[in-house]
Amino acid sequence: MPEILKVGIAGLGTVGSETFRILTERSEFLSPRSGKKIEVTAVSAKNRTAERGIDLSKVHWIDDARDLCHRADVDVIVEVIGGSEGIALEIAELALKNGKSLITANKALIAHHGDAIGRKAEEMNAMLGYEAAVAGGIPIIKTLREGLTSNKFTRLYGILNGTCNYILTTMRETGRDFNDVLEDAQKLGYAEADPSFDIDGIDAAHKLAILTSIAFQTRINFDSVHTEGIRFIAPIDLELSAELGFRIKLLGIAERKLEGIQQRVRPCLVPINSPIAQVEGVFNAVAAEGDGVGLSLSFGRGAGAGPTASSVIADILDLASNRRTPNFGVNALDLEDGNPINVDCLHGSYYLRLKVVDRPGVLADLTAIFRDKNVSVEAILQRGRDPEELVPVVLTTHETSESSILSSIKEFQKLDSVAESPKILPIENFTAD
Amino acid sequence: MPEILKVGIAGLGTVGSETFRILTERSEFLSPRSGKKIEVTAVSAKNRTAERGIDLSKVHWIDDARDLCHRADVDVIVEVIGGSEGIALEIAELALKNGKSLITANKALIAHHGDAIGRKAEEMNAMLGYEAAVAGGIPIIKTLREGLTSNKFTRLYGILNGTCNYILTTMRETGRDFNDVLEDAQKLGYAEADPSFDIDGIDAAHKLAILTSIAFQTRINFDSVHTEGIRFIAPIDLELSAELGFRIKLLGIAERKLEGIQQRVRPCLVPINSPIAQVEGVFNAVAAEGDGVGLSLSFGRGAGAGPTASSVIADILDLASNRRTPNFGVNALDLEDGNPINVDCLHGSYYLRLKVVDRPGVLADLTAIFRDKNVSVEAILQRGRDPEELVPVVLTTHETSESSILSSIKEFQKLDSVAESPKILPIENFTAD
Repeated sequence: MPEILKVGIAGLGTVGSETFRILTERSEFLSPRSGKKIEVTAVSAKNRTAERGIDLSKVHWIDDARDLCHRADVDVIVEVIGGSEGIALEIAELALKNGKSLITANKALIAHHGDAIGRKAEEMNAMLGYEAAVAGGIPIIKTLREGLTSNKFTRLYGILNGTCNYILTTMRETGRDFNDVLEDAQKLGYAEADPSFDIDGIDAAHKLAILTSIAFQTRINFDSVHTEGIRFIAPIDLELSAELGFRIKLLGIAERKLEGIQQRVRPCLVPINSPIAQVEGVFNAVAAEGDGVGLSLSFGRGAGAGPTASSVIADILDLASNRRTPNFGVNALDLEDGNPINVDCLHGSYYLRLKVVDRPGVLADLTAIFRDKNVSVEAILQRGRDPEELVPVVLTTHETSESSILSSIKEFQKLDSVAESPKILPIENFTAD
Repeated sequence: MPEILKVGIAGLGTVGSETFRILTERSEFLSPRSGKKIEVTAVSAKNRTAERGIDLSKVHWIDDARDLCHRADVDVIVEVIGGSEGIALEIAELALKNGKSLITANKALIAHHGDAIGRKAEEMNAMLGYEAAVAGGIPIIKTLREGLTSNKFTRLYGILNGTCNYILTTMRETGRDFNDVLEDAQKLGYAEADPSFDIDGIDAAHKLAILTSIAFQTRINFDSVHTEGIRFIAPIDLELSAELGFRIKLLGIAERKLEGIQQRVRPCLVPINSPIAQVEGVFNAVAAEGDGVGLSLSFGRGAGAGPTASSVIADILDLASNRRTPNFGVNALDLEDGNPINVDCLHGSYYLRLKVVDRPGVLADLTAIFRDKNVSVEAILQRGRDPEELVPVVLTTHETSESSILSSIKEFQKLDSVAESPKILPIENFTAD
């Protein structure tokens, strides 16, 4: 009689249902890969009668998901409800308190409470699995925590939100504007009815905060992630970036600097021939720069039932096989407080788009301000002429400080000829070497 | 007093020395990641006095590496000597026979003897680690065996040899010919003095045979890998491929078909905007297509002391943490014999380069042969005119069978106007979706 790992699933949306389906339909395929037989014993969801295409007749239906945490026939709770607070948090705390392991796809939960949850899991010697919380089907947690464990990382960056990447890719390919493409993405199911979590960068910031912790052994610090979204990106940005040899990507970037840890999510220009620039559509990718391995990049689907369930089941098999790894590469208890560094301490090159009155002398005013702030201009692009009307002007700079850019912008806005708040995109010169 | 994992290193070339260096210099960094303290207790190499930049004064020097396998102060042997037979094989067998674990970077050893070695490890309950044997610093074994374990794979392909990828990239960028670039690669240390293992595709075939086994749960079958190298690639191939929207890459490809398993290593045309086409220079990448995860791609350095040692140490930490995984995803004992499928059973599009006499009627002869063999031509490109002299002609086909191409080629060679054996490159239409 083989030992059995008994699984309770909290939440039967697309990910929960797909996890259930794979675990039940593929049990013969999975058993030689796993130290124990895996059995779903109990499930819970809001609506018992919803059509999910799975046969729930042989498992216990639990009305209140919290009750899963008290059952003797559940060893591990798979939490796929979502949300950083409320029932998901209650379940996480209750499961661990009762000595059950917790596997979750919930990035908001880990980004906000990962430290406390990790410590509780360590205290109870329970497993905390969250592979599915970051970049869906890409096993990046395992790659960083185990595969590249001997490396000290200097930088980590990635395309962590498929919705934004789909929108930016489609805008570039079609020349259509942001709202138009967003509407399409919503129709296609790539964006939520309320898309702000995705398009304002919050979802990517959740994931970045988690990855930062593993890469640098620092406590998760979601609040210190500088977060910008992509609402302000216009077709002209994609067009002119391409002319300059760049693509625009919403990137999460974490760097270990001498003074501490810098985390930011924002749209950036990246060289068109860099590996990260080639990640298009709904795909995600995470690049890590380790001192032993150099550049390592993992690419795949960041969302969807199949990819996310793939990662949930990888965690379940780790548990069934007793493959245990400290929660953040090291134990939560051993994480350090990384001194957070503000985004205005950064140095680099920048792309700026302004709306200015098309009249002689405007460029002279702008470049005089840059001269006074010690910012060196690399290129000025003005498309179209429309005397005394508003036209877009794009400037790119050589390496400078973000604070010089920000103070230049303040001066720009004092000019009569500058019509709206200038848009700033950093140029990130990633290369493969 | 913490438990100690005692490591013996057989071979102190660049990888062995780097592994030693990291394990000793980084022991405080590694210990919170590992269930046991890791200590190198004994080493062996040919030359005791070689300058390696590491301090060997605190470890036992063993003259005959085989003796490592008998020592009570060695729990695991790191074999970084290389070669499929001889001392490396002896050490592998002896280590496992004596119940010690084996971690190796030796692709030839695993490709030829992985099945027997895996079974022996299973019999002795010892760990066999070979992450470093495939694609250097890319943790692809872990990704396939653990991270994507719930997936059934239909296809796996990759750039598995950095030397070839460097040569092809440089030829494309500079227009220089093969021998010229190979010589440079040798000077830069990217190619061996005897480069045939790399440039004839054998090294890539070793790695492919190993990955195939994990992806499809079939016994490693190196002999059934159809293997071609890149010696015949000319600058014109890179130039015309680019015009047609492709890059040339030496790919290892494994497919599960209804009738069995097809494995091949050969230069192919891949669409310029496919993720694999963007892998340039010495970098490697492995793409796997799983039914849950879709396309998953891992990118990084495939060779070098740092990346390879990174994977060796990942295996050591798995062992120290007691994270055990069946040798090929499933145990060697549970692998099936995959029915090998010949390359001439394939279907696809092809690129052919011929050297023909520049005279009227030649193309009519060629296209008449294609018509008779039911091969549909997509494009014909002839660059330069040189009446009655030899000129290159490139043809690309629509989807057809490889056997039709091969029998067409035979007819081509019977023509007076065709000067040398036509060169064939398959067109692999990989996309991200």
